[in-house]
Amino acid sequence: MSDLHRDAIIIDGLEICNWSRAVFEDMRKGGLTAVNATCSVWEGIRGSLDNVAQWKQWFRDNDDIILQVHTTEDIRRAKAEDKTGIYLGWQNTWGVEDRIDYLRIFKDLGVGVMQLTYNTRNLVGTGCWESVDAGLSDFGREVVDEMNAVGILVDLSHVGAMTSQDAIEHSKKPVAYTHCAPAGLLDHPRNKTDEQLRFIADKGGFVGFATYPPFMAQGTDATVEDCVDTFEYLINLVGEDTVGIGTDFTQDQDGDFFTYLSLDKSYARRVVPKRPGDGTVKMPQGLRTIGDFPNLTAAMEKRGWPEDRIRKVMGENWLRVLKDVWGA
Amino acid sequence: MSDLHRDAIIIDGLEICNWSRAVFEDMRKGGLTAVNATCSVWEGIRGSLDNVAQWKQWFRDNDDIILQVHTTEDIRRAKAEDKTGIYLGWQNTWGVEDRIDYLRIFKDLGVGVMQLTYNTRNLVGTGCWESVDAGLSDFGREVVDEMNAVGILVDLSHVGAMTSQDAIEHSKKPVAYTHCAPAGLLDHPRNKTDEQLRFIADKGGFVGFATYPPFMAQGTDATVEDCVDTFEYLINLVGEDTVGIGTDFTQDQDGDFFTYLSLDKSYARRVVPKRPGDGTVKMPQGLRTIGDFPNLTAAMEKRGWPEDRIRKVMGENWLRVLKDVWGA
Repeated sequence: MSDLHRDAIIIDGLEICNWSRAVFEDMRKGGLTAVNATCSVWEGIRGSLDNVAQWKQWFRDNDDIILQVHTTEDIRRAKAEDKTGIYLGWQNTWGVEDRIDYLRIFKDLGVGVMQLTYNTRNLVGTGCWESVDAGLSDFGREVVDEMNAVGILVDLSHVGAMTSQDAIEHSKKPVAYTHCAPAGLLDHPRNKTDEQLRFIADKGGFVGFATYPPFMAQGTDATVEDCVDTFEYLINLVGEDTVGIGTDFTQDQDGDFFTYLSLDKSYARRVVPKRPGDGTVKMPQGLRTIGDFPNLTAAMEKRGWPEDRIRKVMGENWLRVLKDVWGA
Repeated sequence: MSDLHRDAIIIDGLEICNWSRAVFEDMRKGGLTAVNATCSVWEGIRGSLDNVAQWKQWFRDNDDIILQVHTTEDIRRAKAEDKTGIYLGWQNTWGVEDRIDYLRIFKDLGVGVMQLTYNTRNLVGTGCWESVDAGLSDFGREVVDEMNAVGILVDLSHVGAMTSQDAIEHSKKPVAYTHCAPAGLLDHPRNKTDEQLRFIADKGGFVGFATYPPFMAQGTDATVEDCVDTFEYLINLVGEDTVGIGTDFTQDQDGDFFTYLSLDKSYARRVVPKRPGDGTVKMPQGLRTIGDFPNLTAAMEKRGWPEDRIRKVMGENWLRVLKDVWGA
């Protein structure tokens, strides 16, 4: 681990691992200061509460290496205490079902990020794998207003193009593609076009790059070097202040978990095509596990990036956006 | 009550009353053979189950005058036993939340009709009061398939134009506007254009006329004679085999109930404009209460309609469609 990596604030804007002490230990090995940890995808109110309750237990059981993040001050405290700060995130707004008032409930419980839709259509808007996207629903506008009011970051990664555009225009706070890749390098339903990336950046929003081989032109051959290339593509497009990382690590998940993700509402029709082999995803060479995170910083250093840029892309940009949205 | 009214099968395809013994007695006074009684609008799975449980209690407590209808044979039995048969209906598919398998659960419990959406957008499609209608969702297509399979009538009354068109085209069983009025007589978000009415009829579907003054050109001055005029308009448009009645009686409901109906999800933004006065609706002169039903038949007889047509419009058409959808 380089001195720079050790000293910098390192934030991973999206992980959806099979959470365990082993994963938390790998976050320490990787030198991660903070992680957006997915704790709801298809669950409703009750199921999402159960997931939060499980997290509270993990925070207690592992308080020597992780802590719960409610504000960016908590992220700075994690850095100071040599722990990894974890802020809870949802990849769907289904966790509040039809109840706007539950956004504040879950914000109080530590959910700081919510993706508006996961792949398909819900009460708020339409996902990127649905046949037709009519944009934010009228209810969805109320949901975005309340997310702005209580301080929950609007995530648009798996959201459809029209709903994303509506949300970017409607939100009074910065919004983010927390984990995506440029369609300019690979045409894929989950990737964002140059136009979309410029649009979110022009409106004060943010782009987290997912170092997820299925979204990269190199596919299973992707390396950490290719990740730096993609960062450079993004920086050329939207500037170095608007880009961060959101790996989409699915560490220790199995094929059943990918099936759960890939079917609408976890059980209905298949939405995302089945992956080959055991159905899981292998991350890029050099960045296979969360513990490999220092290799990413090293690849940026080797590429000759100025220290300032590395610090911004690896975490400081995220910190600024989270503070803008959370208010502290 | 005329001999014809007494002898005929009389079916009201939509009522949403403040249910009580008094209302059931008025159904007997009105000579009703069967009624589609709304038992869910904004409730989710648990709330809708509670409502069904309440109905099971009402069926036990009032078994001298009402009985629960699962099949059209039950409707014929109600006629023979001089009772009113009640089939449960939902004005929303929200009662199954995100669970397709609950359609069969509720069908088994006696829910024979479900409107796909109530005014706004839900997981299945978009309502007639929403800003943008993108049609049936991909999930909505699965829901319609399952409603076809288990035998639940697809109701499109409060559904948006695009979603209605998609559902009419997608459904393999007849679908219905159970309670609507022609936009050709009054332009109103809830009314259906001549084109829409012809389209549903051409595809084997059904039109129930709502004798609901806010949907009629005469407004608060509407009379039972105006209702017969509207039936004639509809029959000229789609033929006498495709038309029935779905009054939309809200008997004994108060202003708070209309507020509950008028706000999205019962509590969010206002969707339907507030009504003047106490917020309730007075039904047409001559058809003010369910007990006045014989006046409608009398007005048709006075207009010189052949007996055959009266029998069809007052109930036999409904009976045929319900049998087509329910399978018995």
